[in-house]
Amino acid sequence: MYKIAFDVMGSDLGPKIAVQAAIKFLENKKDLIIVFVGDKNQIEAAINETGNVSTTQYEIFPTTEFIDMHGSILDVKRKKDASLVRALELVQTKKVDGMLTGGHSGAFLAGSHFILGELDGIIRPGFMPTFPTMVKDRVTLFLDAGANNDNTPEDLHNYAKLASTYSKTVLGVKNPEIGLLNVGTEKGKGRELQKLTEKLLDEDKHLNFKGNIEAREMLTGTVDIMVTDGFTGNVALKAMEGTSKILLSAIKANVMKSFMAKIGALFMKNVFKEVKTTFDYKEHAGAILIGANGIVFKAHGSNDIQGFVSTLRMTYDAVQNDVLNKMKKEMAIK
Amino acid sequence: MYKIAFDVMGSDLGPKIAVQAAIKFLENKKDLIIVFVGDKNQIEAAINETGNVSTTQYEIFPTTEFIDMHGSILDVKRKKDASLVRALELVQTKKVDGMLTGGHSGAFLAGSHFILGELDGIIRPGFMPTFPTMVKDRVTLFLDAGANNDNTPEDLHNYAKLASTYSKTVLGVKNPEIGLLNVGTEKGKGRELQKLTEKLLDEDKHLNFKGNIEAREMLTGTVDIMVTDGFTGNVALKAMEGTSKILLSAIKANVMKSFMAKIGALFMKNVFKEVKTTFDYKEHAGAILIGANGIVFKAHGSNDIQGFVSTLRMTYDAVQNDVLNKMKKEMAIK
Repeated sequence: MYKIAFDVMGSDLGPKIAVQAAIKFLENKKDLIIVFVGDKNQIEAAINETGNVSTTQYEIFPTTEFIDMHGSILDVKRKKDASLVRALELVQTKKVDGMLTGGHSGAFLAGSHFILGELDGIIRPGFMPTFPTMVKDRVTLFLDAGANNDNTPEDLHNYAKLASTYSKTVLGVKNPEIGLLNVGTEKGKGRELQKLTEKLLDEDKHLNFKGNIEAREMLTGTVDIMVTDGFTGNVALKAMEGTSKILLSAIKANVMKSFMAKIGALFMKNVFKEVKTTFDYKEHAGAILIGANGIVFKAHGSNDIQGFVSTLRMTYDAVQNDVLNKMKKEMAIK
Repeated sequence: MYKIAFDVMGSDLGPKIAVQAAIKFLENKKDLIIVFVGDKNQIEAAINETGNVSTTQYEIFPTTEFIDMHGSILDVKRKKDASLVRALELVQTKKVDGMLTGGHSGAFLAGSHFILGELDGIIRPGFMPTFPTMVKDRVTLFLDAGANNDNTPEDLHNYAKLASTYSKTVLGVKNPEIGLLNVGTEKGKGRELQKLTEKLLDEDKHLNFKGNIEAREMLTGTVDIMVTDGFTGNVALKAMEGTSKILLSAIKANVMKSFMAKIGALFMKNVFKEVKTTFDYKEHAGAILIGANGIVFKAHGSNDIQGFVSTLRMTYDAVQNDVLNKMKKEMAIK
């Protein structure tokens, strides 16, 4: 049996959504126990309301505190019984195989650092979401999506190593192709950071480094892994999210203006559904904190049920494939 | 009469496209003379073929060399008679009021630096394209879109000043709102660069600084001006371009798979046309090099006729509104 701790207090829409997502996910996962971490009464109420889950498939770890979105990173020290802190401790004491939370990003990063620490050789863990791409069944792992403001070339080299192991282990990609996000594809492009990283990746013969890659290739499925620093990664990700949101809503707004277009949209319903499914961020609504000494996922706090189910699936896949130990081995290779 | 030099050799599709675009643009601009800079024979052939232009509306400045896309930035020193070099010289000697080229970006930047130099107080000019936004008739000026790899807080402060003057003068915006591209909207976000820039912008009471802004707001029309460093700007811009291209082509590819959807698309034709017009990069296919001591525009080399017409329009608007002198005055204010 695998065990995953779920900090259900870190949901903007309340713990009920999180519990409902977990129960939905448990439906066809008979080798998994989910440990709900948070307010006992709220969790029990949500379970009773949702029903349809065997008591052998979950546990409740009751906590009395939680860190809300207006909290501070210092709360991980102040609030000993915060659900986020307890969920991380369950990973640290190996009571569970992994955890997820939709809570405060800064507190999550600080908590992971203080409670779990990092894998040998890692100084700055990175957020690694997966992107849908134009290539069927090929997703792109993207990191760092914003755990850090500044990264060194060594950080980015380590990200490539960890993501490569993750891609092989969890996604079953044989020889994952790695790209470095840059302002051009030629050699020697970018800032000092990119120039030095390019050199490190090029020299590491264990990695399948394909060179520099531009941000317009983020969704084309050109590579399996795209590495960048946390500041640039965060900006690129949000530019992408913003653009797809704006474009789809511009189409919608224009459809509403015309009767003919409404009919047309009806005929095109399946097209929009297909495109939405391919590029739906709810299907990619979480990111592993890679480099942390534990399998820990950050989900979007604003997730709906589908979003949390998706992050649960990612956590389960990572746990089931024992990716942490494989990353530890990778980091032990000099 | 206004005069604009057009380096027609800097067009990936050949000078003919550039000449055709110019002739089209001249149709209803009776106060403008375009100086075609490049290979005389090719220019004359293109004019003869296109016809329909008065000889009082254009001049030819014949050159014997040009810098192609595989050229080097050193070519601006080596090739004295390159069309790009000559077009910049025409600006420097005030034979024309402004110029545009679709040619080699690096050579353009180097040429502008050596031939024109910078406005007082400017060290690193920036590329400033304009974005379409969701707000009708509001475009966002975005800079630096990639003229530099590294920028200082002072550079970004100057960008805000120059763009503000541009927005007022050329676009007629009364009190342009300025945002700083960052990884969050709270104060103190980002790297040292963003933190120090935020402080400078906040303290400058001549500027209407609205604070940090995330990349997902690039198309929402939240501000009139968005400043960032050249590396981040280039990545954000390409992420945006890539996403809109991918989404629209995913819709198209899915439409092609179904007869019903094809019918639907027909009914929705006007919707797609409207969205395409709003977000069409061909309508925004060029960028001024702001901070250069002259009105100089870089068009995409891959532009079609419409793309070059759009950049010509931007150049004409800048020239006609005497924006260079207004920026000089702005930079003279301490």
